[in-house]
Amino acid sequence: MPRIVMKFGGTSVADLNKIKAVAKRVAREHHAGYEVAVVVSAMSGVTNQLVGYVDGVTQGGNANLADQREYDSVVASGEQVTSGLTALALQEIGLKSRSWQGWQIPIITDNAHGRARILDIDGARLIAALEQGEIPVIAGFQGVAEARRQSTLGRGGSDTSAVAIAHAIKADRCDIFTDVDGVYTTDPRIEPKARKLDRITYEEMLEMASLGAKVLQTRSVELAMKHKVRVQVLSSFEDKPGTLIVNDEEIMEQALVSGIAYSRNEAKITLFAVPDRPGVAAGIFGPLAEAAINVDMIVQNSSVDGKTTDMTFTIDRKDLPKSLDILEKSRAALGVKQIFHAANVSKISVVGVGMRSHAGVAQKMFQTLADKGINIQVITTSEIKVSVLIAEEFTELAVRILHDAYELDKVTSQLE
Amino acid sequence: MPRIVMKFGGTSVADLNKIKAVAKRVAREHHAGYEVAVVVSAMSGVTNQLVGYVDGVTQGGNANLADQREYDSVVASGEQVTSGLTALALQEIGLKSRSWQGWQIPIITDNAHGRARILDIDGARLIAALEQGEIPVIAGFQGVAEARRQSTLGRGGSDTSAVAIAHAIKADRCDIFTDVDGVYTTDPRIEPKARKLDRITYEEMLEMASLGAKVLQTRSVELAMKHKVRVQVLSSFEDKPGTLIVNDEEIMEQALVSGIAYSRNEAKITLFAVPDRPGVAAGIFGPLAEAAINVDMIVQNSSVDGKTTDMTFTIDRKDLPKSLDILEKSRAALGVKQIFHAANVSKISVVGVGMRSHAGVAQKMFQTLADKGINIQVITTSEIKVSVLIAEEFTELAVRILHDAYELDKVTSQLE
Repeated sequence: MPRIVMKFGGTSVADLNKIKAVAKRVAREHHAGYEVAVVVSAMSGVTNQLVGYVDGVTQGGNANLADQREYDSVVASGEQVTSGLTALALQEIGLKSRSWQGWQIPIITDNAHGRARILDIDGARLIAALEQGEIPVIAGFQGVAEARRQSTLGRGGSDTSAVAIAHAIKADRCDIFTDVDGVYTTDPRIEPKARKLDRITYEEMLEMASLGAKVLQTRSVELAMKHKVRVQVLSSFEDKPGTLIVNDEEIMEQALVSGIAYSRNEAKITLFAVPDRPGVAAGIFGPLAEAAINVDMIVQNSSVDGKTTDMTFTIDRKDLPKSLDILEKSRAALGVKQIFHAANVSKISVVGVGMRSHAGVAQKMFQTLADKGINIQVITTSEIKVSVLIAEEFTELAVRILHDAYELDKVTSQLE
Repeated sequence: MPRIVMKFGGTSVADLNKIKAVAKRVAREHHAGYEVAVVVSAMSGVTNQLVGYVDGVTQGGNANLADQREYDSVVASGEQVTSGLTALALQEIGLKSRSWQGWQIPIITDNAHGRARILDIDGARLIAALEQGEIPVIAGFQGVAEARRQSTLGRGGSDTSAVAIAHAIKADRCDIFTDVDGVYTTDPRIEPKARKLDRITYEEMLEMASLGAKVLQTRSVELAMKHKVRVQVLSSFEDKPGTLIVNDEEIMEQALVSGIAYSRNEAKITLFAVPDRPGVAAGIFGPLAEAAINVDMIVQNSSVDGKTTDMTFTIDRKDLPKSLDILEKSRAALGVKQIFHAANVSKISVVGVGMRSHAGVAQKMFQTLADKGINIQVITTSEIKVSVLIAEEFTELAVRILHDAYELDKVTSQLE
């Protein structure tokens, strides 16, 4: 019997009527002949409320300073409630169901409370339940760490729970129900002609997600890729297929480009005349990493004179003042001549597995932007994407002209 | 090192400021040299909210019809939240603390979900924590049953949790913090001269509690009596000693009478001319028990003619229509001639361990009531109490004149 995991986020279980609707949706798959395991988040707003409680009793109202084990125990209660209610709603319409907390399965995690990683899931109890026609409803986000302490996987962790459960019970597919109905070629708010993709590869999804097309938690996609779990992103409010995230072997013929991603919240820092010697990059980025500042693009040109080079990198805009502060302190020691920065930049990326085997994808991007007089400040490339930094004011224009240039509104042969 | 359990109910942990106040109170005992284990309820209102959720997803909005295992899992989350927050509040003021859920200890219960009974508590982990100077904060109300399912002990179950924990960790005392500051000789709202008792025996407390002086859950007192756990009832808002509930060996000299209890919500049913033959009582009370109607006093006079007798009993007033309905159906088969009933009766009880060894206690009660022209409808007695049924309108008057007659406003030699 085919087996699926259905994961519902906080907005899908936000109140009792929505929970009942979730139960009906699950019942339909059950009656269609699937073995179904359900993963639920907390009711939307509840996790924030619980974090607020932790804030309220801890120093300076900062949950980050709390004992993360207690934080986890408090916050995990949100999923405990929805898992029980969803199991009851399923029973109410005549199905066999029970709730499962992380520790009951168990979902074993490491001890990094608050952002734990799953080490192992024992799928035996869930599989036994499924084979008896029962629908397990699993509290997402939760696991159990050392000394029987409850752990949580961090924000968005329920997606990761769902994928890990799907792997553990050898599910044929993991359906992630969200408030969007799939993955689009670009943001439909910017380009109304944006088209929902039927399929996308894990790699493309990773690039799209980490580049700002926030649909799935990046970790869950990485996990799905690692274990080849087929993931579908679909709407919890509409009844139609979503986007299937699969191995590229499952996609018959690759489109050159699958989508255009963008990220506005970027700031750019350029270090001018950096001594060209071993260890200088480590000297620059070490202090930033220690301050938990996430560096995104890094571009270093080869030195022309063999003595100095220039280095440019991007960071989250909110980290700019702190970053400049840190860099200024080490500037002299590093022998950096000058530091420039710009806060008003956007990153635009063209993503597609197909570009691996096709030249000319990057060139088309550069030409398209040049035709509209948009200056490219920085370029980086990976196997399946090309990213450029441009002035923020051109963001929407760039997205639209690139979407047009690669004809993303047209269905191509990538779709079976 | 002396060891105590401190239990805080829902009103004592109703918000973050109250939780912080609880932490300070616990800290004081800790610094005074006690090993302290804490038991907490859910924030007041939260359990009702969770039960409301269960109601909302189940048939006809009746949580009683729900799968009680899921009900338990949902409802137990309330204590999970407060236990974590209280542990954090203790850490915040520099103490070592961690939260414990029922399954982590574990507190093993039977499978009667929703009203589970504790079978066993493994105190080893808690004792180890205490001996390392840690303050365990235990989620009250919870346990774990078969198949790793969470169970709950029923309303007021946190008192029972606290007493059971106190027994398991061999605590010297179990302090129950409530919104009253102790056990009184009678209800101070009726008799302003009512006096707080320093000590009371388990038996007296059971009679007082089950007779309407609702301070502690009856089950918790039974459990304390069984295992000789010394329990103190005291105020969570005022800083003064409460009432200690102990074995009667701990009370040097017994007062004749410890208190006057009353219960207004009574209804009386009299069966007239019941055939005096074996099995007739079972025939009457069997159908009532099946309908979950709780029968309180039962009085049957010996038959004068050897053929028929009269039988009177009391029930909760709200059960009167249902009871009459049930009795009417079996009346002919039982050979009962007539059924009388009265809804407007009150039960007044005089309670005291000392009356075991003293005659005249009952007589003083009857005389006192007679002096004011209060008619006694029914009398029952046990070893340590005398109860009478009177017209409801005399409730307050009866309580006051009896309180006076036994001089309960005066401190007697029972107090060390």
